[in-house]
Amino acid sequence: MFKKILIANRGEIALRVIRACKELGIKTVAVYSVADKESLHVRFADEAVCIGPAPSNQSYLSIPNIIAAAEITNADAIHPGYGFLSENAKFSQVCEDYGIKFIGASAAMINSMGDKASAKDTMKKAGVPCIPGSDGLLGSIEEGIKLANKVKYPVILKATAGGGGRGMRIIRSDREFEKAWVDAKQEAGASFGNDGLYLEKFIEEPRHIEVQLLGDKFGTVVHLSERDCSIQRRHQKLIEETPSPIITERLRTKMGEAAVKGAKSIKYEGAGTIEFLVDKHGDFYFMEMNTRIQVEHTITEEVTGVDLVKMQIRVAAGEKLEKKNYLPLRHSIECRINAEDAANGFRPSPGKITNFHMPSGFGVRVDSHCYTGYTIPPNYDSMIAKLIVNAATRDEACDRMKRALQEFVIEGVKTTIPFHITMMDDPQFRSGKFTTAFLETFDFSKIK
Amino acid sequence: MFKKILIANRGEIALRVIRACKELGIKTVAVYSVADKESLHVRFADEAVCIGPAPSNQSYLSIPNIIAAAEITNADAIHPGYGFLSENAKFSQVCEDYGIKFIGASAAMINSMGDKASAKDTMKKAGVPCIPGSDGLLGSIEEGIKLANKVKYPVILKATAGGGGRGMRIIRSDREFEKAWVDAKQEAGASFGNDGLYLEKFIEEPRHIEVQLLGDKFGTVVHLSERDCSIQRRHQKLIEETPSPIITERLRTKMGEAAVKGAKSIKYEGAGTIEFLVDKHGDFYFMEMNTRIQVEHTITEEVTGVDLVKMQIRVAAGEKLEKKNYLPLRHSIECRINAEDAANGFRPSPGKITNFHMPSGFGVRVDSHCYTGYTIPPNYDSMIAKLIVNAATRDEACDRMKRALQEFVIEGVKTTIPFHITMMDDPQFRSGKFTTAFLETFDFSKIK
Repeated sequence: MFKKILIANRGEIALRVIRACKELGIKTVAVYSVADKESLHVRFADEAVCIGPAPSNQSYLSIPNIIAAAEITNADAIHPGYGFLSENAKFSQVCEDYGIKFIGASAAMINSMGDKASAKDTMKKAGVPCIPGSDGLLGSIEEGIKLANKVKYPVILKATAGGGGRGMRIIRSDREFEKAWVDAKQEAGASFGNDGLYLEKFIEEPRHIEVQLLGDKFGTVVHLSERDCSIQRRHQKLIEETPSPIITERLRTKMGEAAVKGAKSIKYEGAGTIEFLVDKHGDFYFMEMNTRIQVEHTITEEVTGVDLVKMQIRVAAGEKLEKKNYLPLRHSIECRINAEDAANGFRPSPGKITNFHMPSGFGVRVDSHCYTGYTIPPNYDSMIAKLIVNAATRDEACDRMKRALQEFVIEGVKTTIPFHITMMDDPQFRSGKFTTAFLETFDFSKIK
Repeated sequence: MFKKILIANRGEIALRVIRACKELGIKTVAVYSVADKESLHVRFADEAVCIGPAPSNQSYLSIPNIIAAAEITNADAIHPGYGFLSENAKFSQVCEDYGIKFIGASAAMINSMGDKASAKDTMKKAGVPCIPGSDGLLGSIEEGIKLANKVKYPVILKATAGGGGRGMRIIRSDREFEKAWVDAKQEAGASFGNDGLYLEKFIEEPRHIEVQLLGDKFGTVVHLSERDCSIQRRHQKLIEETPSPIITERLRTKMGEAAVKGAKSIKYEGAGTIEFLVDKHGDFYFMEMNTRIQVEHTITEEVTGVDLVKMQIRVAAGEKLEKKNYLPLRHSIECRINAEDAANGFRPSPGKITNFHMPSGFGVRVDSHCYTGYTIPPNYDSMIAKLIVNAATRDEACDRMKRALQEFVIEGVKTTIPFHITMMDDPQFRSGKFTTAFLETFDFSKIK
């Protein structure tokens, strides 16, 4: 086992890794920017090294500074957390070059999953369902109609140079195809100077469902069921839960097996996640693979009992995984508490927390680096706490979450707590029937 | 279901009940003494009524004041927590007389279990193993030797008027009997002016193991496995855990069945606990039954997933229990954090908490009514928090508990946190092999 792990991150995830290390009897080294010197991760680590000023590229993204800190403190492994350098192939490689174990994916693995086209290609070859569509650009209307009939309507035309919805058309029948093609081509040309179009099956009423995976160096890969992350705002997850209200036991098995197959095909080691879109028919399609621990790993821990960060460390140290699949024994929800004013377009609200009192009691967990008197620096993302509950049923979990949200005292800054309380009372959220578009039409003015 | 519950208690258990009510959508009424007006249970309840000055007999033990508060606020049920009026037959009866549901045992039930001799008699008749011994006073040495051979050595002679170990002798063979008899009789006579002696089988290397029970009004009683509460100081429990390190699956079944049989024989309703002594041979003996929720109910919740306070409320409202036994799926430990200086004879340390920051993260729960700036009144017991962990194994639970204890910030008063940290490192505690006498020979000077 490792003797000393340097945590190349900040905030709650740095604290999360320190907690796991302490319980494993491993010494810890925190690194921190000047802006973070009062953070709890600095206080709770055995050693702490300042690695530069607030801007991330001069501290948390500075490979030389972090490697130097590891060398000085004689750390034999680095845990990168999420974000920052966690999916940086170069960093993974440099760690290896310096003989420091990177608790994450190898450079090659990060590269192969980091490039979306190659990742999709790899997964397709492994037999993981991917969104069907054209291989590259479409040549003609006729080719498009033929393909649309093959992958089945609805389909979507997208501009190869596009973004922001321009040069994009949803098509539901042969009859609509020609007009959509002409319009999209014209719009793409006018917008991007490139009228190349490609076609994909359009995923109706999609949900974002991801499967947690763990792999060891002996080729064993297990899955730990799914997480439903459909409650997103501008592709930022705000609420995650497991099990998904729409996943049947049969679908869980199918998705889990597909994810394991995909991860095995690349001999994946460590903790990873395969993200899928699931449509209203229960068909699922590979989106991407994350080769790191995720923010929302907590809810999987709550329902399976598996400490994912400890397992990450253990398999990185060469431990063998038990071959079993972990089913959700409870229901768990996570609300990301951000220092943001949700009623005003989620405007960031950094500043000093004048009072911080965490909720607790049965089934309540808080992962946070904050405390009374802590000043949230404006330099980083605005997540200040993850509030996680577990309960026997989804309804009980929602009730428990609401109770815990109401107990949570954070004074001095605005937070997304009122938004989450509103969500826990929202009839559609409570019904479990929603898609990733849920927040697009949400009336944020009703937040109390 | 009840519309409004008055909680006739204070501190963490009042908060615990409020949390359960909030999650069930039931309104809450807190009652408080003048000394407790700044307690969290007052802040978190929907309504709060001051019921008198600090001395308990003028507030938390005042039946008229509490009934008046319930009448004024129109509460339809009262939850008594533990201690105070929770096992007061008169209070239970008065509640019934006023048409307020008492969420606890009936007056008759409390009376029958409150008197130790009658409780033992009842359980014996129901077939629950009780410590064998003489029916009342022993008449002669010959009668004593005969009985000792029947219940098997070792036995203990006790002075009927006794206490504090005087007039008490442990006897291991016929040969020792006469001298012990003469000595004990002489000592008892000299000490208490009454030389009457009775005999009991002596329980060697006992552990305090209790079984959690739930009963409904339809005659169903289920058990939720055991709790090991052997770590006691002067009969005060300090650390509790489940499962017990010494209980085998077979013994769990046997004890669970015996406890259920005992509770069924008295048609027990609600949450209750039967406490046993378990000797080194795995034989167990009834000690007493607690007809209320206990401080350490939390660890059972952690390993079974059952919310015991909610279940108490539900069965009191007439809900039917599912017939199943709940086995421990995890390992859970609770440390009672008292405002006491363990290194100095556990001297109470009331006063103002100048900084209070709870530990959290995976598997950590805190039940506490305290916060930064809270003043611990000198009027009540010194428990200020219960720190509870759950983990996959006992070893992991100990490691997690140590981590959480080290994270717990309580400034301004002395606490038992250093004692608990020492315990988590203690080789004998870690081995799981200890008896209720463990702390009698514990070297408290080694507390860091």
